[in-house]
Amino acid sequence: MRIICFEQDGQPRYGVRDPGGVREPLDQLIRDPAALFGWLRTAAPPIGPLHLPGTVKLLPPVPRPNKILCIGLNYRDHAAETGNPLPDYPTVFLRTAASLAAHETALLLPRESSKLDFEAELAVVVGTGGRRIAEGDALSHVGGYSCFNDATLRDYQTRSSQWGMGKNFDRTGGFGPDLVTPDELPPGARGLSIRTRLDGDIMQDGTTNDMVFGVAPLIALLSEAMTLEPGDVIITGTPAGVGVARRPRLYMRAGQTVEIEIEGIGTLRNIVEAD
Amino acid sequence: MRIICFEQDGQPRYGVRDPGGVREPLDQLIRDPAALFGWLRTAAPPIGPLHLPGTVKLLPPVPRPNKILCIGLNYRDHAAETGNPLPDYPTVFLRTAASLAAHETALLLPRESSKLDFEAELAVVVGTGGRRIAEGDALSHVGGYSCFNDATLRDYQTRSSQWGMGKNFDRTGGFGPDLVTPDELPPGARGLSIRTRLDGDIMQDGTTNDMVFGVAPLIALLSEAMTLEPGDVIITGTPAGVGVARRPRLYMRAGQTVEIEIEGIGTLRNIVEAD
Repeated sequence: MRIICFEQDGQPRYGVRDPGGVREPLDQLIRDPAALFGWLRTAAPPIGPLHLPGTVKLLPPVPRPNKILCIGLNYRDHAAETGNPLPDYPTVFLRTAASLAAHETALLLPRESSKLDFEAELAVVVGTGGRRIAEGDALSHVGGYSCFNDATLRDYQTRSSQWGMGKNFDRTGGFGPDLVTPDELPPGARGLSIRTRLDGDIMQDGTTNDMVFGVAPLIALLSEAMTLEPGDVIITGTPAGVGVARRPRLYMRAGQTVEIEIEGIGTLRNIVEAD
Repeated sequence: MRIICFEQDGQPRYGVRDPGGVREPLDQLIRDPAALFGWLRTAAPPIGPLHLPGTVKLLPPVPRPNKILCIGLNYRDHAAETGNPLPDYPTVFLRTAASLAAHETALLLPRESSKLDFEAELAVVVGTGGRRIAEGDALSHVGGYSCFNDATLRDYQTRSSQWGMGKNFDRTGGFGPDLVTPDELPPGARGLSIRTRLDGDIMQDGTTNDMVFGVAPLIALLSEAMTLEPGDVIITGTPAGVGVARRPRLYMRAGQTVEIEIEGIGTLRNIVEAD
């Protein structure tokens, strides 16, 4: 099933993609991920109101996650291109909800920097919470998958040892469009091609098979430290081809269109806009 | 004014410390920081119900901040003791709300590690939001100050370059007890002694004058990247004396009492408990 989150009357709602548009699951509104994943577990067909295509304003699949857990250097070829050894432990940092941008909204290029770089990533949304989740059970905690553009201000990222500033400018993290339930994809979303296109040119072209830590080990490792909650988002790292590793270096400019495409999941599209 | 956040019927409420206990500001409940700071700006006296001392269950001054922005290596003596140069730019990382622990609740020592270390920090709570706040205006955006124990799993902190894991174990970040409005303190909370006591022994003993980046420059720098919102929390770094820098090294053990005391703000007390 392909789920979308959209806004109406200033509030989020969830719906299911349908040939006729977007169908709400129930007559009763579903506004948050916990309710959404509760409904999905019932396996009931969607029976709520239908919204015609183009009439809904998309939001990120989780508009205000409690946690956005980000994994750095998690593709073999990307670790190599940035001169880093293959990690023996995941590199974990965080983004804030305010850094998110929905599908087909602007990614903001701030006036303070010209070094906004793309990072195509597989996003995992937690469906069932838990702590100290065993790796063998981990995939049953996944609520769905989506596309993420973990766009980064490269100059701010490296002004200190920690990446907090470079990863958290307002509305730099593209997220969407659909949340795709795990039954539509291979286990752990393995073997999917993952690409970035900038104004149509392919910049990153990898496969999720190249992840150093796959979805199940990441859930196990992260939940060693913290209780995962429905709607928490894990973004799982980017393959080679980022702008900062190119020669000459290449950054996104205002007016360009950036797309993150993951096989079987969809295409996230944002236009870069000067803030 | 000294504000506390407490729980009743499973929900947060704000009140004002009063010789007779805790007085709610209004007959109408104040449940979130934006409403709290809106009320504080009216300068109206608190006229709501009075709760007797000991009858309320304290929460962190902001129970679920949208952002917890943390500054590393921000005291001259602590940068030195950890072998780091004095930073020329703030080291910014994030904590999640789930990592918070209220005053007089347990700090959790997870079974995965024995290296839980204390870090006494001045917490700044944003009262008035904004983006690109000028340093000269920054202190007018402060809603209040509190104490924070940025307790860290030292082994997890250094398993990769990013500190996300070591800083985000469930219920390791003590925060409270009171939120003290800026009019009760020197501008920018400068010149306050800041201490950690472990079972009564002084472990850290510094002054907020030793901060490399003070409150106003931190607000200006952080808001360059992101819109600050009422209730966002900035924790501003720790002075020398942390356990990992001692010889022999010293970590907190289950059953110990850890206190963070900041002059004019209060004493945050937690008991370390095995998870």
